[in-house]
This record gives sequence, structure tokens and C-alpha cells, in this order.
Amino acid sequence: MTESVYKIIELVGSSPVSWEEATKNAVNSAGLSLRDLRIAEVMTLDMKIDNNQPAVFRARVKLSFKLLSD
Amino acid sequence: MTESVYKIIELVGSSPVSWEEATKNAVNSAGLSLRDLRIAEVMTLDMKIDNNQPAVFRARVKLSFKLLSD
Amino acid sequence: MTESVYKIIELVGSSPVSWEEATKNAVNSAGLSLRDLRIAEVMTLDMKIDNNQPAVFRARVKLSFKLLSD
Amino acid sequence: MTESVYKIIELVGSSPVSWEEATKNAVNSAGLSLRDLRIAEVMTLDMKIDNNQPAVFRARVKLSFKLLSD
Amino acid sequence: MTESVYKIIELVGSSPVSWEEATKNAVNSAGLSLRDLRIAEVMTLDMKIDNNQPAVFRARVKLSFKLLSD
Amino acid sequence: MTESVYKIIELVGSSPVSWEEATKNAVNSAGLSLRDLRIAEVMTLDMKIDNNQPAVFRARVKLSFKLLSD
Amino acid sequence: MTESVYKIIELVGSSPVSWEEATKNAVNSAGLSLRDLRIAEVMTLDMKIDNNQPAVFRARVKLSFKLLSD
Amino acid sequence: MTESVYKIIELVGSSPVSWEEATKNAVNSAGLSLRDLRIAEVMTLDMKIDNNQPAVFRARVKLSFKLLSD
Amino acid sequence: MTESVYKIIELVGSSPVSWEEATKNAVNSAGLSLRDLRIAEVMTLDMKIDNNQPAVFRARVKLSFKLLSD
Amino acid sequence: MTESVYKIIELVGSSPVSWEEATKNAVNSAGLSLRDLRIAEVMTLDMKIDNNQPAVFRARVKLSFKLLSD
Amino acid sequence: MTESVYKIIELVGSSPVSWEEATKNAVNSAGLSLRDLRIAEVMTLDMKIDNNQPAVFRARVKLSFKLLSD
Amino acid sequence: MTESVYKIIELVGSSPVSWEEATKNAVNSAGLSLRDLRIAEVMTLDMKIDNNQPAVFRARVKLSFKLLSD
Repeated sequence: MTESVYKIIELVGSSPVSWEEATKNAVNSAGLSLRDLRIAEVMTLDMKIDNNQPAVFRARVKLSFKLLSD
Repeated sequence: MTESVYKIIELVGSSPVSWEEATKNAVNSAGLSLRDLRIAEVMTLDMKIDNNQPAVFRARVKLSFKLLSD
Repeated sequence: MTESVYKIIELVGSSPVSWEEATKNAVNSAGLSLRDLRIAEVMTLDMKIDNNQPAVFRARVKLSFKLLSD
Repeated sequence: MTESVYKIIELVGSSPVSWEEATKNAVNSAGLSLRDLRIAEVMTLDMKIDNNQPAVFRARVKLSFKLLSD
Repeated sequence: MTESVYKIIELVGSSPVSWEEATKNAVNSAGLSLRDLRIAEVMTLDMKIDNNQPAVFRARVKLSFKLLSD
Repeated sequence: MTESVYKIIELVGSSPVSWEEATKNAVNSAGLSLRDLRIAEVMTLDMKIDNNQPAVFRARVKLSFKLLSD
Repeated sequence: MTESVYKIIELVGSSPVSWEEATKNAVNSAGLSLRDLRIAEVMTLDMKIDNNQPAVFRARVKLSFKLLSD
Repeated sequence: MTESVYKIIELVGSSPVSWEEATKNAVNSAGLSLRDLRIAEVMTLDMKIDNNQPAVFRARVKLSFKLLSD
Repeated sequence: MTESVYKIIELVGSSPVSWEEATKNAVNSAGLSLRDLRIAEVMTLDMKIDNNQPAVFRARVKLSFKLLSD
Repeated sequence: MTESVYKIIELVGSSPVSWEEATKNAVNSAGLSLRDLRIAEVMTLDMKIDNNQPAVFRARVKLSFKLLSD
Repeated sequence: MTESVYKIIELVGSSPVSWEEATKNAVNSAGLSLRDLRIAEVMTLDMKIDNNQPAVFRARVKLSFKLLSD
Repeated sequence: MTESVYKIIELVGSSPVSWEEATKNAVNSAGLSLRDLRIAEVMTLDMKIDNNQPAVFRARVKLSFKLLSD
């Protein structure tokens, strides 16, 4: 593993339930096209409000995956 | 919407259950007196501990709402 | 309380369920050997991914406890 | 001026033209109800995109004004 | 205390003597109209210079106070 | 919109005229291959200098666009 | 001194008088059990308020001390 | 160019027109005494307000120039 | 060069030898598929430890390359 | 004052008494060779410890002064 | 591994040779008393200068190790 | 040493070999005209790439030196 290279992409996931679900949604969406996903680091969390009511939890995450391994 | 002005206030909400509930409590409390709430951005999260036991989740959020619209 | 001194340590807790549980696990583990725990401040949150599936929530926290009191 | 107190509020101004105009709009909107405005510090700048075309410049600013003077 | 909501405002206090006095002045000025003040967190400190001589200490603080309690 | 996923990429746009034009150039270049662009957040601004004269304005932006929607 | 190792711990000191005294209290408390203290770096300063009156100055510091020397 | 050394100085430029002009003014002022100016990085932007009206745009920049070349 | 657009991607390179080699590995891996690479900015550096022994140096870098030129 | 240019330098002042005195010492030392000093912004504060006893307060400040005025 | 807890300590290592050696020295010193060391994250790097000559490389690192595992 | 004043300047050094050499080059260049250099703190590290090959290591450092001593 000593010379592997990872790439990091930034995604925003959403969920009406929780920031954990929002993060899972972002990861699952990335998992449709990328293999070897490793870690999703939370950058920011927010909550959208509709009609003055809490509505959607959003998590902006940096997601790393293996690009090359030795 | 091209010349609207938003104001941002900072609140700390609390909940014995989760940071999502803590954020909702802050937003609902603001919703009692403000209209057109838009987004609650999480600044910091912490957990108060009582008698050496996890007790209260707190979320410090910046909350934006429309002040003027064109 | 005017001259008390607090110490702050940094821990990473994990949970398959949520960041709230991950934080509680870190606090409970610290509570085995430390008294007068006060606040756990979240530094970073991330999610480990195994076999391309969301797996473990981790919370890095700074935990304060009373060292000396007047 | 040695014991005056200033308050700082946070606003987001918008303009289809520039970030300078966005900032001026935020300041002018505040000037409708506040006197002794002093400085608008830029926190963040962004640009909203509509129909894949650049549309609105937004400036988030912290605006200070005199609350009390000696 | 588990569902109380706090608001945070930002003030700049001044004093010819020290940053402690500058902070106290900001807090005392807020205390004229707000109850249940809790903590003043220092954001930045600076010193104004007049006629090339140190003149006024200024403290920019975030001040929290209770908005709602359960 | 409650479970949509956004991706964020980072670009640097340039313009001899202004940072607004530099940002528009980055967005327009991205718009050649990406749909549903949403917001360009300014990360940093600088100005290149040639022959000791101000020459080119550059804006480093994070650009978000919709990846998946529910 | 070329291969010495230092450890850094984080403390919060308090004082009714000043942030200098708060920092000294943290250092003196650490000095009861640690030798070769070197520098206390201020992380954050705040002021606790009781009964709407300024009450206690607190300084959160990182304190370094020699662990090993060559 | 592999062993050249650059120096970086910090300036604040002003303009009644725009932050681009404010930055150019800072660079042009530095160009009176320094050669081989390279890049002006924006640190902060603000706007001074006089008589409650937007008045002067200011840009705080870090300006690099070549000190030594190989 | 006044209207060129650059893209920035984030990579983590590894090396058992040094952070310089880790960065080179990330750049060389990117160079397999991208032309006109320009600068690799270090975001974070760390060292993985295996069996309680220093093992692998890792560098997280932002890598810019030309997307469009005028 | 609309097109004046300011320069900013960084100094560390020391005092056995307080951070206010440390800052004044830095400013007074700069005032020996520079005119039109304006503001000293605190970057960091620390305290040196000698023989395990609090010894010297140090303030790292950014000091601005007028370079050119219109 | 889903409920393990890690602790993070902060060390400064030194070396006349390189920041890699400085980091290894900090890790090796910690390894004398701690097991299950995992990652050393670089916080800051600096170089001490003696007699106006580069002398010692120092790395301030955060070092994590396993406290509890499930 | 209790009332000495230090000045801090910012330099970028380069080297085809390593960031340690880049930092030494910056320090040695400063040492041609300044005495009593003390510490070079690393602000940022990057690597320039020529013809898609790693080429030059650059270190941006803040360098402190004694201005006045008591």
C-alpha cells in the first residue's frame, strides 16, 4: 500500500431524515460509478427550510477512493 | 430575486436526542418571529455532559432569512 | 469556580449507527477513568466505507474535564 | 471614541452586475433602519447560475455600526 | 435546560486601559437591553494608534444569551 | 429535491477585466460539458502582474452541479 | 537540542482578574506535576458572565513541555 | 528559476470604484520602488461607509516579487 | 493566457521515503491521463504507522492543470 | 482618503507584565522609524515560561501604516 | 472495529536532517510507552536557526493510537 | 529578553531537491542582509511542474529576526 494514489471528490448529499442519511446518499450515488471508496469526510452540514419548516438535511463531504495501487 | 437582501443570525439549539433535533429547535424558535427562513448552516456541534453521562446535544447554526426582495 | 483549571483531551469515537453514538462512545470510554467531564466539542466527522458500503461513523472530539477547582 | 461600542450584523446582498453592487445593496438596505454604519467586511462571494448561465452576484458581508459612544 | 435556545450577537468594545475592560464595556452595553447573558467569546483583538501612540484597545466578541428555555 | 446529490469541482478562471468576468469564464467553460450548474463559490482571488503592470484577474471557484435527483 | 521531543497539552485557566492571570493559573496548575514547561500558546479567550455582570476570564492554552532530550 | 527567492509584502489599496481598482492601486504604488512584481493575492476585501453611504473599496493583498534568482 | 481556465483536482500520494516522493507519485499518476499539469499545492501531510513503526509518508495535494486556453 | 495605500508589517512584542504592554512595546519600537501608524491587530498571544514559572507575555501583531495618500 | 476509541496526542519532534526524521523521532519517542500507534498528522513545520544558519527541523504532529476496541 | 521586539517577513524559497532545501535557500538569502534570524515557520508547500514532470519544490515561510533587545 506504500505507493498507492487516492483521488478525492466533493459531493453534497441530501436527506429529509438526518445528516447520516445525507452522507450515505452521497456515498451510495458515488458507488454507482466508483470502486474502492474509502472515507467520506464531512466538510459542512446545513438544513434547508421550506415554508418556514425544517425540510432537508444536507452534508457536503470529501470522498476518497483508490486510483492506483502498487 | 436578483437584488434581494438576506440577514443571517446565529443561534444555539439544544436537544437530548440528536444534533438534527437541536438544529430544528433553533429553527423553530426563530420561526416564531421571523418569516422566509432559508438555510441553517452548522457552525459547531457539541455535547454537554452531566454527572459524567452524555446529556444534551447542541448545534450552533447560522440562520438566513429574506430581509428585502425586489 | 473562578480559578478552576480544565484539561482538554482529543478522542475519536466510532459507531455503526450515528455520529451522536460515536460521540457518546468516546465520552463513555473517557468516563471510565476521568471524573467531572464537561463538554465534548466536535472537531471533525467522517464515515468509513467498507466494500463500497457506508460502514462506520466516526467523531473526533475535544473533551474537557475539571483538573483543579478553587 | 475610546469607549464606544459597535454592533456587527451579517447580511447577503445580491446584484446582477457585480460584487461591488451586491455589497452596496446590502449596505443600502441596512441604512434604511440603522445609522452610523462604518465598514462592510466581505465574508464570502459567490455567483448564482440560472439555466447554466451566470446570473446573480452575491456578497455575504459583516456590517458594523455604532451602538453607543462616550 | 435540554431544549433551550441561545442567540449570539457580535459586538466591538473599546477601552483605553485593556482588552479586559474593552470586553466588559461591550458586555455592559449589551446588558442594558438583554437578560441572561452567558459568555463573551473573543473573536479578535486590536489596538488603535493615534498620533503614533498606542491609544485604544478593542475587543470583537460574540456574546450569547438565552432566547427560550424549556 | 430531498435526496438529490450534487458534485463540486474546483476551477480557476481568468480575465483581463474583472473578477466577475474571471468567474463567468470559469462557469462558461464548465457549462460546455456540464448541465444543471448551480453556484460558483469564490475560494480565492488574485491578480497576475506582467512587466510590473496589473495584467490578469483570476478567480478560484468551487462550482456545484446536480449529479442525481430523486 | 536537535533531537528533543516536546509534548503539548491543552488547558483552560480561569481568573476573576485578567486573561494573563487565567493563563498563569493554567501554567501553575500544570507545573505541579510537569517539569520543563516551555510556552503557553493562547487558543481562545472568553469571559463568563454571571447575573448579567462580567465574572470570570478564561484562557484556553496549549502548553508545551520537554518529553525527551538528546 | 529553480533556486530563486521571492519576498511577500502585505498592502491595503483603496478605490472609490471597485476592488479591482483598489488592488491595482496597491500594486502600482509598490511598483514605484520594487521590480519583478509577480502576483497580488487578495487576503480580505471591505468597503468603508461615509455618512451612511458606500464610499471606498479596500483590498488587502499579499504581493510577491523576486528577491534573488539563480 | 488572459482567459485560460484551469481545473484543480485533489489527490493523495504515498511513499515509504519522503513527502517529496509522495507528492511526485501523485503527480506522476495524474500525468498518465492529464496534460498541462501546473502546480501541486500541499494540503496536508501525514505518516502512517505500522506495527508501531513509521511506515508510509502521505501527501494530500491539490493539482492544477489547463482546461482551456485562449 | 479614497486612494491611499497602507502597508502592513508583522512584529512580536514582549513584556513581563501583560499582552497590552507587549503590544505597546511592538508599536513603540515601530514608531521609532515609521510614521502614520494606524492599527495593531493581534495575530497570536503566548507566554514564555522560565524555570517552570510564567515569565514573558508575547503578542504577535500586524501593524498598518500609511504608505501613500491622495 | 466499529466501536473502537482512539486518543490523539500532540508532539513536536526535531531533527537536524529533515521533517520526515523529525516526525519519526516524535513517533518513536511515543512508541516507547504507547501501543497501537496509527497515524501522525502534521500540524505545523518549522526550522530553528542558530548563528544565522539553518539548524533544526521541527514537526508538530497529532498522533493517534487505539484506546479501546470492541 | 523580556522586552525584545521581533520582526517577521514572508519569503518563498525554491529547490529542485526538497522542501528542506527550499526553506534553507530562503533563510540563507535572508541571512545576507539580516542578523539574529530565529525561526522559519512553514506557511505553505507546493511543487511546480514543468513538461508534466515534477520540477521545483517551493516553501513559503515566515521568518522572524530580532529587531530590538533590552
